[in-house]
Amino acid sequence: MSHNTFGHLFRVTTWGESHGPALGCVIDGCPPGIRFTREDIQADLDRRRPGQSRFVTQRREPDEVKILSGVIEDGDALVTTGTPISMLIENVDQRSKDYGDIARQYRPGHADYTYDVKYGVRDFRGGGRSSARETAARVAAGALARKVVPGMVVRGALVAIGENEIDRANWDWDFVHDGENPFFTPDRSSVSVFADYLDGIRKAGSSVGAVVEIVAEGVPAGLGAPIYAKLDQDIAANLMSINAVKGVEIGEGFGAARLSGEENADEMRMGNDGRPVFLSNHAGGILGGISTGQPVVARFAVKPTSSILNPRRSIDADGREVEVLTKGRHDPCVGIRAVPVGEAMVACAIADHYLRHRGQTGR
Amino acid sequence: MSHNTFGHLFRVTTWGESHGPALGCVIDGCPPGIRFTREDIQADLDRRRPGQSRFVTQRREPDEVKILSGVIEDGDALVTTGTPISMLIENVDQRSKDYGDIARQYRPGHADYTYDVKYGVRDFRGGGRSSARETAARVAAGALARKVVPGMVVRGALVAIGENEIDRANWDWDFVHDGENPFFTPDRSSVSVFADYLDGIRKAGSSVGAVVEIVAEGVPAGLGAPIYAKLDQDIAANLMSINAVKGVEIGEGFGAARLSGEENADEMRMGNDGRPVFLSNHAGGILGGISTGQPVVARFAVKPTSSILNPRRSIDADGREVEVLTKGRHDPCVGIRAVPVGEAMVACAIADHYLRHRGQTGR
Amino acid sequence: MSHNTFGHLFRVTTWGESHGPALGCVIDGCPPGIRFTREDIQADLDRRRPGQSRFVTQRREPDEVKILSGVIEDGDALVTTGTPISMLIENVDQRSKDYGDIARQYRPGHADYTYDVKYGVRDFRGGGRSSARETAARVAAGALARKVVPGMVVRGALVAIGENEIDRANWDWDFVHDGENPFFTPDRSSVSVFADYLDGIRKAGSSVGAVVEIVAEGVPAGLGAPIYAKLDQDIAANLMSINAVKGVEIGEGFGAARLSGEENADEMRMGNDGRPVFLSNHAGGILGGISTGQPVVARFAVKPTSSILNPRRSIDADGREVEVLTKGRHDPCVGIRAVPVGEAMVACAIADHYLRHRGQTGR
Amino acid sequence: MSHNTFGHLFRVTTWGESHGPALGCVIDGCPPGIRFTREDIQADLDRRRPGQSRFVTQRREPDEVKILSGVIEDGDALVTTGTPISMLIENVDQRSKDYGDIARQYRPGHADYTYDVKYGVRDFRGGGRSSARETAARVAAGALARKVVPGMVVRGALVAIGENEIDRANWDWDFVHDGENPFFTPDRSSVSVFADYLDGIRKAGSSVGAVVEIVAEGVPAGLGAPIYAKLDQDIAANLMSINAVKGVEIGEGFGAARLSGEENADEMRMGNDGRPVFLSNHAGGILGGISTGQPVVARFAVKPTSSILNPRRSIDADGREVEVLTKGRHDPCVGIRAVPVGEAMVACAIADHYLRHRGQTGR
Repeated sequence: MSHNTFGHLFRVTTWGESHGPALGCVIDGCPPGIRFTREDIQADLDRRRPGQSRFVTQRREPDEVKILSGVIEDGDALVTTGTPISMLIENVDQRSKDYGDIARQYRPGHADYTYDVKYGVRDFRGGGRSSARETAARVAAGALARKVVPGMVVRGALVAIGENEIDRANWDWDFVHDGENPFFTPDRSSVSVFADYLDGIRKAGSSVGAVVEIVAEGVPAGLGAPIYAKLDQDIAANLMSINAVKGVEIGEGFGAARLSGEENADEMRMGNDGRPVFLSNHAGGILGGISTGQPVVARFAVKPTSSILNPRRSIDADGREVEVLTKGRHDPCVGIRAVPVGEAMVACAIADHYLRHRGQTGR
Repeated sequence: MSHNTFGHLFRVTTWGESHGPALGCVIDGCPPGIRFTREDIQADLDRRRPGQSRFVTQRREPDEVKILSGVIEDGDALVTTGTPISMLIENVDQRSKDYGDIARQYRPGHADYTYDVKYGVRDFRGGGRSSARETAARVAAGALARKVVPGMVVRGALVAIGENEIDRANWDWDFVHDGENPFFTPDRSSVSVFADYLDGIRKAGSSVGAVVEIVAEGVPAGLGAPIYAKLDQDIAANLMSINAVKGVEIGEGFGAARLSGEENADEMRMGNDGRPVFLSNHAGGILGGISTGQPVVARFAVKPTSSILNPRRSIDADGREVEVLTKGRHDPCVGIRAVPVGEAMVACAIADHYLRHRGQTGR
Repeated sequence: MSHNTFGHLFRVTTWGESHGPALGCVIDGCPPGIRFTREDIQADLDRRRPGQSRFVTQRREPDEVKILSGVIEDGDALVTTGTPISMLIENVDQRSKDYGDIARQYRPGHADYTYDVKYGVRDFRGGGRSSARETAARVAAGALARKVVPGMVVRGALVAIGENEIDRANWDWDFVHDGENPFFTPDRSSVSVFADYLDGIRKAGSSVGAVVEIVAEGVPAGLGAPIYAKLDQDIAANLMSINAVKGVEIGEGFGAARLSGEENADEMRMGNDGRPVFLSNHAGGILGGISTGQPVVARFAVKPTSSILNPRRSIDADGREVEVLTKGRHDPCVGIRAVPVGEAMVACAIADHYLRHRGQTGR
Repeated sequence: MSHNTFGHLFRVTTWGESHGPALGCVIDGCPPGIRFTREDIQADLDRRRPGQSRFVTQRREPDEVKILSGVIEDGDALVTTGTPISMLIENVDQRSKDYGDIARQYRPGHADYTYDVKYGVRDFRGGGRSSARETAARVAAGALARKVVPGMVVRGALVAIGENEIDRANWDWDFVHDGENPFFTPDRSSVSVFADYLDGIRKAGSSVGAVVEIVAEGVPAGLGAPIYAKLDQDIAANLMSINAVKGVEIGEGFGAARLSGEENADEMRMGNDGRPVFLSNHAGGILGGISTGQPVVARFAVKPTSSILNPRRSIDADGREVEVLTKGRHDPCVGIRAVPVGEAMVACAIADHYLRHRGQTGR
């Protein structure tokens, strides 16, 4: 991953800030002949879209995707031609406001200070490039990546908000996208707990972190590489590139550090269909950097957004000590909308490795 | 990171298997004029070297580095010329043995099965490319990377073995490399606990995981990029590329998911020297993907090696169900020797970003 | 250069087809703080724009550039922020027509056949991705690249059309952009010759090739690398990536093959200002892949466009033998409008190496 | 191509200087299961080896290749495992001598001055990294690349030395490697002309340039991409990366600039076997950046080496004006030994695109 491009054969470049006229992505290296519809892309964007419940930012953005290149029409469908696919999403709700002091203040926990140190110039409006809006471009790219690997299904779910964890015994993928579920939680019983908890956070003008889990099923065995270009490594890099993500783990993850070799190693038998089966999946579907054919399981930790209504001590660009509080529309738990983003980033990583594997081995 | 090369401007390519004649690395893009000695490289290699206590593999390898290109001699020192630096380490103790059944058996938790699925051919001797021996090449590269960033000090420590965690109140960097400390633990009081625990593991023919923490001090503010090519992301990718690593976190990491925005955001004041100071370091030295000037803090989880003496159910390459047990010399806790490896990977990531930042900004 | 991205630190990704809604580019890695105006970009686009004389295609495109990201406004100027800069140019004059047979016929000398063999699907409208329109995106990127290297001036000129070469004794850079000069020729005396010649070509429904020379002055010494990432090599790759280019040379180029070592080597003396001077520039400003500080000189050969009115034998996608003739608006000498494109590609290559050199050496 | 690595999926990194202990390459991304022998590699190295006639340098190097990783033995053959393949060639004949003044003098036409400007430090022995010895590593890599594309045959020939061109009517591939042919010329009648001419050059202490042509047959149609990552562009970059190369052309190359569209476009018919045939090959086997299935034809110009016995004016590192003459063993026409090097670079470019095409399209 270099600069604003990620992927090696399925390459995604994103661009755009929160308060510019638009944002978008260019997908390069997509196989030709992939059929999809604009609605396939839009559906994923809609899941990430703000303003859908009181638990996410109230910014109103239709997030309508335009597809500008790299496809031909075939009836109602679009078909990729193998040339770069440019997608664009206009920014509509860039509420004009007086940024006033905030333009020069360094909000604690935000990248304001580091931007200024690095670049010496900064688009302070809405977080600039670090805005969660940028993730719309990733989601658009991921919607196409899903089509690249035949049979692959990538799904995500919120597994913890703050101290509150789901009960895994209640895991229900169907519930994740249920209309009554504003959290992408797979555990119906967690909704009221999360809602009460987040209402408290929201009313207190505070914010809280979360943990998201992504599961990719139907990933062929053999994708990845032994030690560099490990599939888990590229998934980790892709997830860690999402705003506010501070930790990533695969399979047992940090839990593996507490296991013995006997406990952690997934035993194998021959299945009834004459194919190998694993008796467990501590590895999260990846052994030695290469997919096993089991579901690929990754989790990432999202820190609480630093945009909070409570004043915090900081400095400004002139070196003055100030108190900062961030008004405006913010997600009390930015981790919620990170679920479709995480799915997209995992889908892109796997699609890329699918093409790389095919390139190297012809399989 | 692509294939067996990592880094963008400070680029490291490694090669070699456990049981071939040698292994090594090529470092490309190193600045010219960097002075170092062969001993600088050797010292780091010696810290990673096996056979130094009963808690690591008894394979005996001198791990003597040869420097084949990219330098000129200047008195006792070597000076980089800006051309690729090739380093080579011979494999000496490749005990010849009858691999017998193991050649076709898939050891649970190992990459044997995935190698065969991916490549259709496999060097089964000693784990092939996935051997921990490969990390010697990384350590050699990292020893040079340390020289690239003026004033940077990168140190690592083992902070947990299995269920046993260190007491952070006892943290003592000096003790990490004390001759009486076979664990790179920073907590003197943990040595006997770890020793008793690992003796039990070792005698039981088992293995256990660990958590390693890396701290880089003296990292200039401004390295990295907002959302892709984030410094934390490249550190995560580099660490996740190490054998057996299944989780990575920066600063508070997964703990950040449980914090509020107020708790997690590091407040700022002006220091007595007229420079900004942070009042805490939950961010682990990186905000919005860019270094803050505070210490960069990363942790990674190492799974227990799957080479254990206790039989486990598996299959072989012919689809026969078998019981596998792995004789030979192995690390009961491969996480111990991962400490200098983690330091090297963090040093390489930061050196790369140091050059990238200088390239883009001229600073 | 990989897929549709070129450059290593100053990275340009282009997208778009001739007959889609728009085309554009994303420039990633641009230094922050570069000041420019939309007019700077537009001026270069205007030089490349079709329809400006009877010697180029009559397609009417305003080629108005929109800048969508990566900049902030500062008075009348734009200032780069260090984040990706997205530029977009709408396609306006996509004359709807009945492509009829042409949709399945392989035009000789065009990429129709190879597209179908490669991708199995093809946007046959106007040459698809291979349209000369794509070069507008390069020109936009190049206009920004020019700003990256302080003091650099990159200029191009047409030095031959078909068999007709300019007289180098008449070289006049000022004349190249003279309003009476539809050819970018630096030789005033060549205009009537070129005009008569091309009128004949045009009326015959034929086309002809050309040679373009690019000269970059003010290039600092030290850019490039000894054998890979040679500055001349990256210039060659950039120029060869332009549609219809079939040859590239640096300095004496193919002429160097006929010289002796004495003739070809540029001697050096100390200048009056105490700085080294070269007594000739056979090397074209690049020795051992690294810039000398002299003007960088490159030439490239553009083949005649294969869109001609005279019937040629070919086959169609069904394997039928057909006669093909290409109606529509075409450049009789596509090499003319390649002049600003060549400038842009050389500017991008040098800007990239300027940043790379600064990254590696700190100078 | 970045730094000292070229290729995208079939990636070659080379390292080493003329007078260090060794040089070599690491080939990453090679498909698994490729069978070859050490002799396959050695045979190509032997063709490039110095000292084989009076027309090339008298340096005596056995150039014996060692293969250190990435393969397993299978009887007499080696089989690639898909992991990086490290090859090493020791430098044997590093005649120790007193470099004296030459260490600080800038030889005209050499990269001495530009190295010093760029790096501020320089390995002046034997040209350092710019030595023709480095090309041995490319030849070794190319020997393996040839095996990657089934049925591909890549051959090269010298087509001009100084003003002397071959007669293409006499082209005989068999003669190129005839023992009586010290020039890789395909024209038996040229040998005595070239020999007399070069004897004169050699005795005069001078040197001369040459033109080399490479022809790759058996290249599948469909490799490459429309405008960036064009097959011809990557071939051009690979050839231009060879020391002393100053021009590259594909098919008609610069000659295409003088042709009309009718003359240049290759007509097509259906062949007797029901497959498309081209009636000519002006395109050099590449249309729109994508291979047509016809032979790929590239030519490159090699400048005369600047190591000549006749004194030339220059300066030294202290800014003193000096006269330089280069004693020692040199090739009077370095273009001769460039023939196998050019073959290797073309083979590597095509192998890389073969894998990339397979990755993107699955074909």
